[in-house]
Amino acid sequence: MTPLEKLITHIRKSVLLTDEQAKTMTASFVTKHLKKKEILLFAGEQSSHMRFISEGCLRSYYMDKEAKEHIIQFGIEDWWINDLYSYLTFTPAKQFIQAIEDSVVLQIHRDKLNELYNSIPALERFFRFKFEKAYVALQERTINTMSKTAENRYLEFRAKYRDIEQRVPQYMVASYLGITPEFLSALRKKTR
Amino acid sequence: MTPLEKLITHIRKSVLLTDEQAKTMTASFVTKHLKKKEILLFAGEQSSHMRFISEGCLRSYYMDKEAKEHIIQFGIEDWWINDLYSYLTFTPAKQFIQAIEDSVVLQIHRDKLNELYNSIPALERFFRFKFEKAYVALQERTINTMSKTAENRYLEFRAKYRDIEQRVPQYMVASYLGITPEFLSALRKKTR
Repeated sequence: MTPLEKLITHIRKSVLLTDEQAKTMTASFVTKHLKKKEILLFAGEQSSHMRFISEGCLRSYYMDKEAKEHIIQFGIEDWWINDLYSYLTFTPAKQFIQAIEDSVVLQIHRDKLNELYNSIPALERFFRFKFEKAYVALQERTINTMSKTAENRYLEFRAKYRDIEQRVPQYMVASYLGITPEFLSALRKKTR
Repeated sequence: MTPLEKLITHIRKSVLLTDEQAKTMTASFVTKHLKKKEILLFAGEQSSHMRFISEGCLRSYYMDKEAKEHIIQFGIEDWWINDLYSYLTFTPAKQFIQAIEDSVVLQIHRDKLNELYNSIPALERFFRFKFEKAYVALQERTINTMSKTAENRYLEFRAKYRDIEQRVPQYMVASYLGITPEFLSALRKKTR
């Protein structure tokens, strides 16, 4: 499948799109090819696009005052990745988005997407679902960080994101879980 | 204005609704009259409704293991209030919703709302906006709790919710800010 075909297939898992609508929609997406380690969004820039991963693996992270990186999200094929807060509030991104592998991302500008909502109501539904899910994920992430032990967070991560765990370097998994690589390694031995 | 007229006016601030659509929509809302202190949603119940406040003032809060209440959200006329996580995930609510004053709330069941999305695309847009804003508000609340001082949180609350500060008991404002009533009182004196 081409990247655009993957996008159409992905959207059709949630809503009905006619071939005509699919054609109109895909005309507004731009394909970006990223090399491993290439940065798609810099903190400080405004995120004006929604971004679909058609191939590869990316991460979003913020950098604290000591220049330490904290991973917020991983994304692989068939996921969306963004600094959604920046996109929704027109403010500078707090997060970087970077390719962990060579990747292909399809992105659409906010203005184009807002136009498409008018001509393709199914797309507006798709993104309503998206924002509902983003709300739920953010709530879960907040609760997990505050109330669960590192071991439980690791076990949940492994259950939910098995395929990601095997693709990204261990120090990144540790950063996502908010623990040291040494502690992650101990957890892995313990829970094997 | 009647409660239903207020709802229509509120929704028309964001999207276009024909009179016909407004009529169809309001037929699916149920009006609830609440006495001061009455509970609209109990923790443990599933929240199956979206809830618009047409009159009065409510709060949502959770109760910790020591039965201490932590206020998550206040709501007054023209606001929506809910345990949105419960509504979106079909899980038991973690929050209570309670009237702080005699209040009138209009609520619509999830199933009815999902039906209306099909006949009134403008309503789907309205709720897309709603979920986008809910995401932004949740993100801001999380960041504020983690990274701002109590004094700054109080000043922001006062700037943003002046009308609420004057309507709810001070101990509830303290609970919302995560500080003691004594500390709030000291902050009020200091920042007067």
